[in-house]
Amino acid sequence: MKIALAQLNPTIGDLKNNAKEILKTAQQVATQGVNLLLTPELSLCGYQPRDLLLNAYFITEMEQTLHQLARDLPPNLHVLIGLATPNPNFVVTGGKPLFNSIALLTAGKVQNIFHKRLLPTYDVFDENRYFTSGTEPNCFTIDGIKIGLTVCEDLWNDEDFWGKRSYLINPISELAEQNIDLSINLSASPYSLGKQQVREAMLKHTAIKYDRAVLYVNQVGANDDLIFDGCSLGFDRSGELVCRGTSFDRDLIIVEFDESKQDLKLGKIQPLNDCTDAEVWQALVLGVRDYIHKCSFQKVILGLSGGIDSALVAAIAAEALGADNVLGVLMPSPYSSEHSVTDAIAVAANLGINTRTIPIGDLMQGFDRTLEPLFAGTEFGLAEENIQSRIRGNLLMAISNKFGHLLLSTGNKSEMAVGYCTLYGDMNGGLAVIADVPKMRVFSICKWLNREREIIPHNIITKPPSAELKPGQVDQDSLPPYEVLDAILEAIVCEHQSSQQLIDRGYDAQVVEKITKLVKRAEFKRRQAPPGLKITDRAFGTGWRMPIASK
Amino acid sequence: MKIALAQLNPTIGDLKNNAKEILKTAQQVATQGVNLLLTPELSLCGYQPRDLLLNAYFITEMEQTLHQLARDLPPNLHVLIGLATPNPNFVVTGGKPLFNSIALLTAGKVQNIFHKRLLPTYDVFDENRYFTSGTEPNCFTIDGIKIGLTVCEDLWNDEDFWGKRSYLINPISELAEQNIDLSINLSASPYSLGKQQVREAMLKHTAIKYDRAVLYVNQVGANDDLIFDGCSLGFDRSGELVCRGTSFDRDLIIVEFDESKQDLKLGKIQPLNDCTDAEVWQALVLGVRDYIHKCSFQKVILGLSGGIDSALVAAIAAEALGADNVLGVLMPSPYSSEHSVTDAIAVAANLGINTRTIPIGDLMQGFDRTLEPLFAGTEFGLAEENIQSRIRGNLLMAISNKFGHLLLSTGNKSEMAVGYCTLYGDMNGGLAVIADVPKMRVFSICKWLNREREIIPHNIITKPPSAELKPGQVDQDSLPPYEVLDAILEAIVCEHQSSQQLIDRGYDAQVVEKITKLVKRAEFKRRQAPPGLKITDRAFGTGWRMPIASK
Repeated sequence: MKIALAQLNPTIGDLKNNAKEILKTAQQVATQGVNLLLTPELSLCGYQPRDLLLNAYFITEMEQTLHQLARDLPPNLHVLIGLATPNPNFVVTGGKPLFNSIALLTAGKVQNIFHKRLLPTYDVFDENRYFTSGTEPNCFTIDGIKIGLTVCEDLWNDEDFWGKRSYLINPISELAEQNIDLSINLSASPYSLGKQQVREAMLKHTAIKYDRAVLYVNQVGANDDLIFDGCSLGFDRSGELVCRGTSFDRDLIIVEFDESKQDLKLGKIQPLNDCTDAEVWQALVLGVRDYIHKCSFQKVILGLSGGIDSALVAAIAAEALGADNVLGVLMPSPYSSEHSVTDAIAVAANLGINTRTIPIGDLMQGFDRTLEPLFAGTEFGLAEENIQSRIRGNLLMAISNKFGHLLLSTGNKSEMAVGYCTLYGDMNGGLAVIADVPKMRVFSICKWLNREREIIPHNIITKPPSAELKPGQVDQDSLPPYEVLDAILEAIVCEHQSSQQLIDRGYDAQVVEKITKLVKRAEFKRRQAPPGLKITDRAFGTGWRMPIASK
Repeated sequence: MKIALAQLNPTIGDLKNNAKEILKTAQQVATQGVNLLLTPELSLCGYQPRDLLLNAYFITEMEQTLHQLARDLPPNLHVLIGLATPNPNFVVTGGKPLFNSIALLTAGKVQNIFHKRLLPTYDVFDENRYFTSGTEPNCFTIDGIKIGLTVCEDLWNDEDFWGKRSYLINPISELAEQNIDLSINLSASPYSLGKQQVREAMLKHTAIKYDRAVLYVNQVGANDDLIFDGCSLGFDRSGELVCRGTSFDRDLIIVEFDESKQDLKLGKIQPLNDCTDAEVWQALVLGVRDYIHKCSFQKVILGLSGGIDSALVAAIAAEALGADNVLGVLMPSPYSSEHSVTDAIAVAANLGINTRTIPIGDLMQGFDRTLEPLFAGTEFGLAEENIQSRIRGNLLMAISNKFGHLLLSTGNKSEMAVGYCTLYGDMNGGLAVIADVPKMRVFSICKWLNREREIIPHNIITKPPSAELKPGQVDQDSLPPYEVLDAILEAIVCEHQSSQQLIDRGYDAQVVEKITKLVKRAEFKRRQAPPGLKITDRAFGTGWRMPIASK
């Protein structure tokens, strides 16, 4: 039996076009002798639809789209499609009004509907907000082959692999008891750094443990803060990798299940990225491209400060959208160093993007004059530093509004963590491209980018980072070296460590207390930040839900 | 038996001070012959602690605080305290690592720990993200009286009352089967308009249905976007109200349970607000006061435009913090009408708040000059309108940064819904005071405020609303009348209605389509809005989780 894995890139809520993509793919594989087409979790509405699911009319439209699709699909092809379906009994049994479902379509009809059993409700996931768990193991038979179906999280609860359970039941072990021939997992599993290695180890473990081949189809593309990396997989019953889809791009993988051996045949295996910098780079490029296009924009602008963060964001944007669609704006102030301008011009030249230069000295003086009656006798400080940043933010938004270019913000995760960024200033933008990229990773990606030729000018990488909001200012005046800062932040943000634990690990107590306090105090800024592309296990954003008014 | 209901106002995460408040209250009631002291759900850490719960050290500190409190409390008093406790079996049984618990403290020891059974995961609630459900009915006996304990949501699942179930089990009916003498519900139930009437009807229904008296203790005070209104209650077994705590303020209510009659005796009943405008007003005053003080601020500033929104916010702030702690800033532009200045001055005078006037004409010209090389030949439009708003936003933030006053933003819910507000401009602020108040309600609160003397100048209430960002502009140039707009928004935002349903209800199709599109397109602005005080069933903010890049 030939099976096709469609690594699709749906747009959230765009039922019509998502259905069209599925149909196109189905028509294509039907001519290639494929019996079964797999699409990702919630392939009809995209993952995550979030509160669109609370609109009953959206669910109705989704069902209508599914039935139309059933009629339109090639009749001999079996197709699995992900969608939300009503839970007819919730009024009586309690629970949520929906299931996270997979429909099996064949011969013009919806033959069966299966429900996801394990509903992730942690980090960025809110599935208990919308869905009730399915209670039955999901399997079906095609051409005499009994197929066990799991949906994403359903497969992520093996206590042997994880050393613990996250849910009471384990759907795959129930399916194995039902003597399935092949296991299929339809997913929308968001990217984070190093996650593919975990997925492969986990799937390999599952294949061997249950002595069943397993196919895993993942969504690809970015939706708001979440990037889906595709990288769909197949493992045979001995745990050997038999196929792998492209990372960070649409793909269509066709594999063959050998009935006599009850196993998958070797197919095409796409390579993984050869280094983590390349992996993050690809993720961010996809994240920018999809956000811009799915929001119906073509062009972006960003402030080019001559620093490494905006240089990297410019490079990502140029790769994602084409250099012609990126405008870099230089806004030097009297405090800007000469190299800030020459470095910004140099990176723009390397990337081939256009630039405009708008000096802000006059506007700074204008604000000084305007505020003179209130500020007379006070010293230059944070207020004045922020005014500069907000003048730039206003100019960028003015250009954005005037020409319809989306503004990209350029702050990194280390800055966002400690609040070394100006709300309504450099934090402005529709998308915070590297908001989940720690500063040390910003450096390493830029070095990797320069592996063949200089893209990020050498001076940008080697000069001491500075916001240049007062004369001679550098970040390290008031922060520990970035190696230390990033290690402490990783412990606080991702590992939930206390100050005491960090001090016990050998970090300076004063530094730790200072960083902890800065992270807490910056919460109000993060709450108002644009969506930031998630590339780590714990990003600020939808998966970071902290109180502000707290002690 | 004498029972005290402590309507406390904890600060999120402030274990030490929250414990101190409980201790002080306990010492006070112990001298009054009270046997049992009730405190709200999660009284030790405050509700909602959100992702602080993911830090294991926070849970450990909470347990240590509880045990210290047990030792410090008067030994003869029984005290119920809400806190998160570890779920020791989650690694084996699956589920989350915590319970939402109530500890019973007596005689220097933690005598028992009970677990909440129904975990709300909808709207602003994320309890499935953190907690595992308790599996046993919770009851205990004091002085021969068997008390059934429920925690907030545990009591909100009566299918007779609601006409449906939200959860499979019903804790109160299980408790009734165990022959409890008295039912106690410890809550942290956020305020929304009209909710107290529902609570009272529901508790009355429960008392009558199970023929048991019921006591309900609610948290009071605001934490970020959520306002808790207190209003704790007691109903006797015949369903008569026997006590009610103050609305929107701390209270301590002492009631007596008559063992012979197995019923509560009549106690003190605080009145409810006599109108919904007064109720919302009180909620917002508390919301502002707590946010400002819990964030360790004393003073606030806001832009005073001469319009009704900023006038109302100024009035709320003056009531919450004292007029001396409120600074109104007038920032007239060449497009500002004369009445915008005189009206702003008049409302400030009525409230007794200070004002400063900072004309922005020079800065507008400065931006025009600065952007001339890019904007030459284009027409005045949205970009220029937004520049004005962002100049004001920058000035307000500069004053905020310079003097340490928190900036209040003044946009109403109708504006936030359709995006008639400028991101990084008038949306700037630490707290969006009336972001959940529809424009029509803004009008009615202002009229109510003027019931005895003019606080909001008459002209502010009667003149046509305008952003005054271009000559002669009024809101109704491009929006339907606010009566119509607010009704459509209520249907879209709160009732999840489709455009077709609205058209079927008689609204103009073009208007409906326009409003629907505006609401969707403003999502990126709302994502970056400050926390807004929630007063309706469905506020933009933590309970509104919409995708941005969607179709």
